[in-house]
Amino acid sequence: MNLDRYKNLKRQNRETINLNPIQRGGVIPSEAKKAIYEFWDGYSICDFCHGRLDEIDNPPVRDFLNDLSEFLNMDIVRLTHGAREGKFIVMHALCKEGDYIVLDKNAHYTSYLAAERAKLNIAEVGYEKEYPIYKIDLERYKEVIDELEDKNKSIGLILLTHVDGNFGNLNDAKKVGKIAKSKGYPFLLNCAYTVGRMPVDGKKLKADFIVASGHKSMAASGPIGVLAFNEEFSEVIKTSKRYPIKEVEFLGCTSRGLPLITLMASFPYVVNRVKYWEDEIKKTRYVVDELEKIGFKQLGIKPKEHDLIKFETPILDEIAKRDKRKGYFFYDELKKRGITGIKPGVTKEVKMSVYGLEWEQVEYVVNAIKEIVNR
Amino acid sequence: MNLDRYKNLKRQNRETINLNPIQRGGVIPSEAKKAIYEFWDGYSICDFCHGRLDEIDNPPVRDFLNDLSEFLNMDIVRLTHGAREGKFIVMHALCKEGDYIVLDKNAHYTSYLAAERAKLNIAEVGYEKEYPIYKIDLERYKEVIDELEDKNKSIGLILLTHVDGNFGNLNDAKKVGKIAKSKGYPFLLNCAYTVGRMPVDGKKLKADFIVASGHKSMAASGPIGVLAFNEEFSEVIKTSKRYPIKEVEFLGCTSRGLPLITLMASFPYVVNRVKYWEDEIKKTRYVVDELEKIGFKQLGIKPKEHDLIKFETPILDEIAKRDKRKGYFFYDELKKRGITGIKPGVTKEVKMSVYGLEWEQVEYVVNAIKEIVNR
Repeated sequence: MNLDRYKNLKRQNRETINLNPIQRGGVIPSEAKKAIYEFWDGYSICDFCHGRLDEIDNPPVRDFLNDLSEFLNMDIVRLTHGAREGKFIVMHALCKEGDYIVLDKNAHYTSYLAAERAKLNIAEVGYEKEYPIYKIDLERYKEVIDELEDKNKSIGLILLTHVDGNFGNLNDAKKVGKIAKSKGYPFLLNCAYTVGRMPVDGKKLKADFIVASGHKSMAASGPIGVLAFNEEFSEVIKTSKRYPIKEVEFLGCTSRGLPLITLMASFPYVVNRVKYWEDEIKKTRYVVDELEKIGFKQLGIKPKEHDLIKFETPILDEIAKRDKRKGYFFYDELKKRGITGIKPGVTKEVKMSVYGLEWEQVEYVVNAIKEIVNR
Repeated sequence: MNLDRYKNLKRQNRETINLNPIQRGGVIPSEAKKAIYEFWDGYSICDFCHGRLDEIDNPPVRDFLNDLSEFLNMDIVRLTHGAREGKFIVMHALCKEGDYIVLDKNAHYTSYLAAERAKLNIAEVGYEKEYPIYKIDLERYKEVIDELEDKNKSIGLILLTHVDGNFGNLNDAKKVGKIAKSKGYPFLLNCAYTVGRMPVDGKKLKADFIVASGHKSMAASGPIGVLAFNEEFSEVIKTSKRYPIKEVEFLGCTSRGLPLITLMASFPYVVNRVKYWEDEIKKTRYVVDELEKIGFKQLGIKPKEHDLIKFETPILDEIAKRDKRKGYFFYDELKKRGITGIKPGVTKEVKMSVYGLEWEQVEYVVNAIKEIVNR
């Protein structure tokens, strides 16, 4: 065993501007860094635990979960290891084997995996229009539900991806929430890309359950997630017959460590930053406008309503044909300029986000890309 | 919302000698602290991911999992969010609803919870002798299995707690492994209190599956765990039909963040420290010898074979009756001396561990307790 390779672990891209959309919302502020110093030992969060993670008062986990409920406008909040783990918990607790889940065609792969693990069936709601918009046909939820009911299929859950991770399309969740309510099915909204980046009001969106991701969008070190639900569904979260204070679907405690500390320490920062969502949208639209001038083509809903941008980039494909680095030229040239997070070697389509960057940095990124393309 | 309470989160007990057995094995070394600086942003571990957490080369996750297999003498290793999550994965993947799990009466509450979540039944193996030893009657595994078979019950899994969290009793796992093998059932060994503290050789112990805990015993910030298994069981871990590179029971990726970085960075330290297990046992036995002189009585197997000590403490109970602080006097007096981790208010029984403390600190702890009792 060469144990030296675990000594001095370095992050190669630590000082770069990282455009990877899954990373922009997880950059932690200095408040969280300071808290890490205090709590980096395993189980340190449990110094003053009386048996339940969500009821620890020191550090203030109990208060935090209450404040988080208020922030999300939901009744009850629990911690999970991430959005995917939250989705599995809801499915496993609510549905019986073989039930159908109705979900959008832009759903994250982990929504499908959670359903597969819970031994459920899937019915998809497709697009209003495919290329280049890929907008989910929200009204179709009604029809898909009707079709399943006509076939006497048992429906366990309605799931919608608030913003998908492929096109960054924002869905009007309220529409689906209303359909679910009128049909009498519970409604789970996957907010992995929205809670912590933009304002999310669970009640207004008619969500019965919300899952969110700390490491993706709440300025927390992973892995940690949030599961919020309404009073009406409080009985879904059962406690153990043998250990009455322990919740079965959470195996007692979930995120018992550093990720939770960072989620708490970053909370004031996150509560504040979502107020500036309009400015983030401005930055995003600026990037689209400028890069479309040089031959990029934005896919998904236009104009952008979320910071995740997917571009079709025929111009990069063209350059790759004449560059000896092939498709890697773009990654390479960006890296030289201190910019990372664009998939190496890919030239047909690129995904990026400038969420949380200063305007100066956004301009720097845009100019760098223009320079690389126009060499 | 009073957001000020999340600013400057402090760990009150940061600078103390913490005797809580669940905390001693999770104290992280400076190597891990340095690595945290590099990777504290959410999803930073995924900078160079091609779709699978366990195959990331930078940082060296793939190498690490191979080295960990060697360290445990098992064929394959995967990451989980903790030992409990690993147990659920094994149960959920291996067993069908209603199956029986045969486990020891000292099993951790999360073994029961994992079984409850997986909708399984439990058959317990009890003690050779209850008070004061509480030693599991390992040969009884055979009888319990026979009894279930006689009743035509379907058995899904044999589980043994290598060292339990109540008495710190070490079980001779090989005995149970042999029984499981001869009967043809898979054998899961819960090593949450052993892997990372003492040498564990999976093959020698006849384990088919091993779960371990990073935050409990592998000097990692939680939550993170390890699931190791043998080639023979590799098909239990199925990949998704729709996403063939993603493993269903792991929902794609598990511990995608800081806890994994600390587990890797601490690994050389852990590999080294288990070599000094005999010295840890010496410290533990010294504590027992000295404290039995002042009226403490060690429960569980004697002499100690693990650092977790449970004492019956009639002497503390007596003092509590005449101290105006009642049962809190012990916690309070220890705290004054910079020692924490003993449950406040409890005087009939106390649990403690001096794992990883310097001999000088062990003596300091022993002398402090003597001083408090003999005031």
